[in-house]
Order: sequence, then C-alpha cells, then structure tokens
Amino acid sequence: METSVDCIPCLVHQTLDAARRAGLDDARCETLLRDILTRLGQEDFRQPPPAIARMIHRRIRRLTNDPDPYREAKARFNTLAVKLYDELKVRIEKADDPFDAAVRIAIAGNIIDLGVKGGIGQADVHRVLEETLTCPIHGEPTSLLRQAVEEADDVLYIADNAGEIGFDRLLIEIIGIDKVTLAVRGSPVINDATREDAKACALPETLRIIDNGTDVPGTLLRDCSPLFLDHFSAADVVIAKGQGNYETLSDSPRSIFHLLRAKCPAIAADLDCRVGDNLLRFRQP
Amino acid sequence: METSVDCIPCLVHQTLDAARRAGLDDARCETLLRDILTRLGQEDFRQPPPAIARMIHRRIRRLTNDPDPYREAKARFNTLAVKLYDELKVRIEKADDPFDAAVRIAIAGNIIDLGVKGGIGQADVHRVLEETLTCPIHGEPTSLLRQAVEEADDVLYIADNAGEIGFDRLLIEIIGIDKVTLAVRGSPVINDATREDAKACALPETLRIIDNGTDVPGTLLRDCSPLFLDHFSAADVVIAKGQGNYETLSDSPRSIFHLLRAKCPAIAADLDCRVGDNLLRFRQP
Repeated sequence: METSVDCIPCLVHQTLDAARRAGLDDARCETLLRDILTRLGQEDFRQPPPAIARMIHRRIRRLTNDPDPYREAKARFNTLAVKLYDELKVRIEKADDPFDAAVRIAIAGNIIDLGVKGGIGQADVHRVLEETLTCPIHGEPTSLLRQAVEEADDVLYIADNAGEIGFDRLLIEIIGIDKVTLAVRGSPVINDATREDAKACALPETLRIIDNGTDVPGTLLRDCSPLFLDHFSAADVVIAKGQGNYETLSDSPRSIFHLLRAKCPAIAADLDCRVGDNLLRFRQP
Repeated sequence: METSVDCIPCLVHQTLDAARRAGLDDARCETLLRDILTRLGQEDFRQPPPAIARMIHRRIRRLTNDPDPYREAKARFNTLAVKLYDELKVRIEKADDPFDAAVRIAIAGNIIDLGVKGGIGQADVHRVLEETLTCPIHGEPTSLLRQAVEEADDVLYIADNAGEIGFDRLLIEIIGIDKVTLAVRGSPVINDATREDAKACALPETLRIIDNGTDVPGTLLRDCSPLFLDHFSAADVVIAKGQGNYETLSDSPRSIFHLLRAKCPAIAADLDCRVGDNLLRFRQP
C-alpha cells in the first residue's frame, strides 16, 4: 500500500508525539520537526507508510540517544495484558465458539496502538474488549481462519504491538503452540512488539519466536532477514496483525489473513471499510 | 503569539483540507503538500500561525486559480446566520441580561470555524448555541465589556469568520450601530469574513465597514492598511473575535477585548485555559 497524502499530517503528528515521549524540549522538537518536514517534502510516497515512519523514528532515536522512547508505555500495556490473561482465558473457554472469541480478543488487542491517532489508552481497554466480543467482524467469517489453521502444520503469526501480543497469546494457544511461529520486530520502533515484549507478556517458553530483522513498524519484505523470509514463504498459513503489517504486506506475493481494526481513513479506503471497523480479511495475491 | 510546534500538524492538515475543498486531485494535492512541507521546514516560527496560514492559502489559490475555495462553505454559514437572526434577537430581548446573552451568541458564532480541527459543521450550530447561552464564560465578566462600550464613542469590532458575523450583528446592534466600525479581511482566506460576507449576512447598511487590507486569517498589524491602523489606534474600545485575531494581536501595543472559543491546545496554553473554553479576555499591553 502506498503512502497517501492523508498519511502525512498523521506522520507529522506522530513525529511530535514521539519526540515529546522521548523527552525532547521545545527547541529540539522544533529542530527535529523541521528536519522531518523537509524530508517528508522529498520522500517517496510509493513506499508504504511504515517505511516513512521508520525514517522518522530513526531520526528521533538518534537525536535523543534513546533506543526505545516508548519503553515505559510498552511496559504498561504488557503488564495490563498479563493481568487480563486469566480472565480472558476463562471467557474464551466459556464462549459458544472459543475460536471466534479468541479471534475477537486478538483484534481487540490491536486497538492498543500508540502510533496512530485512533489508538487508545489503557483506560479504554476494558470497554473495547467488551465491544469487540459482540460487534460484527467485517470481511471473512472466523470459521474460514479456523479451518485454515486446523489444516495447517505451520502457521506464521506476525505480531504488531507490545501489550497486544498478550492478547494474541490466547489465539496462538488455541491454534496450537507447537504449530505457530511468532514473528516480532527486529528492534524497537514506536510501541511495536519485540522479543523483550514477548517475554514481558509471558508468552509460552516453548513458543518459537523469530524477529523480522528490521526496525520498520510493519513487515517490509525487501528489508526482512533471510530467516524471516524463509518462514514467510514456507508457512501454510500467515496471520498478520494490525495496520503496519497490512500496509506493508498488502501487495505481497502470498495469501495472508489480516486481523485488525481500521484506525484511519487511508487504510479504511484501501480496505473498502469504515474507520473503526474490526476486520478479518483473507488477502490472496 | 509565536507559532508552536503543535501548530504544524494542524497547518499540514489544513493544507490538505483546503486543497480538497478547492477540488485538487490527488496528484496536485501531493505537489502542493510537498511544497508546503518544504516551506514549513524553513518557515520562521516566531511569526503567529495566521502569517504561516496566509502563505499556505496563497499557494493553494495560486495552484487552483481559485481566489476563494471556501466560497460555498461560507455561503452556507452566511445563509444559516441570516435564518437564525430573528429567533436570536427575540432570545436576547427576553434574556435577563440582554448584553450578556448577545456576548454569548457572538462567542457561539466563533465556533463556526473551518480553519481548525475543533471547528464545527452546520449541523452542530443549534446545539452549540444552546450550550453557550448557559455555560460559564471564562476570563472577565461580560459587565466589564458592557461598561467599556457604554463609555466609548468609537468601537472597532474586528470580525473573524463568515457566518459568525451574522451572530456578531446582534452584539453590534446592542452596542449601537452608530458607534461601531466593523473590520473584515481585505480578501478571501479560509472562511474568514470579507465585505461580501458582511453583505450576505445582512449587516445594517448604515454600519461602517472597513477591511484590514490583507489576506491574513488574523490581524497582522505590520501588513494592515493605514486606514485600518488609524481605526485600530484611535478606537476607544477594540473587540477582536476568534483565534486568528488573538494569535496575531496577543502582543499588540493596545488594550483589546478578545471574544473566542479556545479550539486547540496551543492557544489554550497561551490563554491559560482549557480547550473548549469560551472566553472574554481583556488584554492590556
């Protein structure tokens, strides 16, 4: 998916938000902002938005000398996910359709997103969980995904955000830990999940975890590690969570199940849905 | 008031909004946006935000060859204001404190603003009117303004937006048409009021109307016409409506009554109030 002109105000907003989180004072925020504005003016918009976001967050990390400005925010959401695990597990077990409930909880987790304006804070997590357990899921029925993973020996689950992976854990356990490989980002960018977050979210020790070898808040195949690319092409089923993975994989050469909440007009237009819709979308090349 | 880094995402958003209103297709939106991003990267942030907004809207008018992209939007709000006039006049006459009610209605009119994100559409005007007639007005009591205009022979009333001036009309009539000079913008910019809008809002024919000689969505004294500057320095009382006038006049050399709704964090910080507050602020140099 290419970068829309509508992504640009959001990226400028994200620059300031990240700069403030990283503790930059107003003068250094201004220096950063001028640099990013000038670069955005010359940026290649045929790239997906996460490729541009990578450039922005690299500049911020360099300027602040802080390799992970979202560390604290991620820790809060990881802790919350761990706290909620037992309660959510019971809900799934008691549900009429446990697989469907687990998919819904995984989508609800995707609403934890500090990178876009439609993302929410910690206080809203409970409300969103309740809504997502009963609201319509647009796109394909969850039974299509269930059938696909039941028939698969090898499922690649591409994670999105810290905290969110604590919700993904429940779906991964229902799919079967032994057939899932979880892919996280290679290094910190925004609040995207890394190996450290998988550990903080108490994902099972026997779960196979790989990283994509990049600091892109998405899955930019041309920059991913050979190990990741091997898993990506060999897996029977690929599940990709969230906008960043959709934006970078929407033109990919293989079929993918996308699970996400559409949080902005640019992605809603690409997915032909409305902002706020929860989606299970099976995309075939 | 200087331009805050927080104004920049808003100005980028405004660029796209205005470009779309002006009917630019995606390719020309992108050309414009790149140009504005590059210029913003080098812009002097010691200027008030309306000085930067002028640059943006000049580029848009040049690129579209449309001298007034907000023409239709302004016409809708002018028509609405004319329709509401009789009803609002009765409400003021029946109010316990008609002057206070007229000030509140003038502030409610300020919520019609297409230049900032906190501005509203036509559908919300009625709701906002009702709220503003009863909500607290922060800053000075309306009696302070009443006393000042009662003692004045010569009141300069600096308008803000089209439509809004139809609401201002009621306050101007209570102050006394013969002692008021209404100042509008010299030429169209965003949905700011011009002479044409004063006519469309059916302002009394005997009301003295001047323009400021500029296309700034505010009152940038260094660029205003000599006629405007004469009125500005000679008036016994100056009333300035809205954010754009506040942002450009907050360091001015004379006392001013500002009437506005604080619509964004940057102005709320400068005014030491909260976003959404309605204000009557008497500023002395």
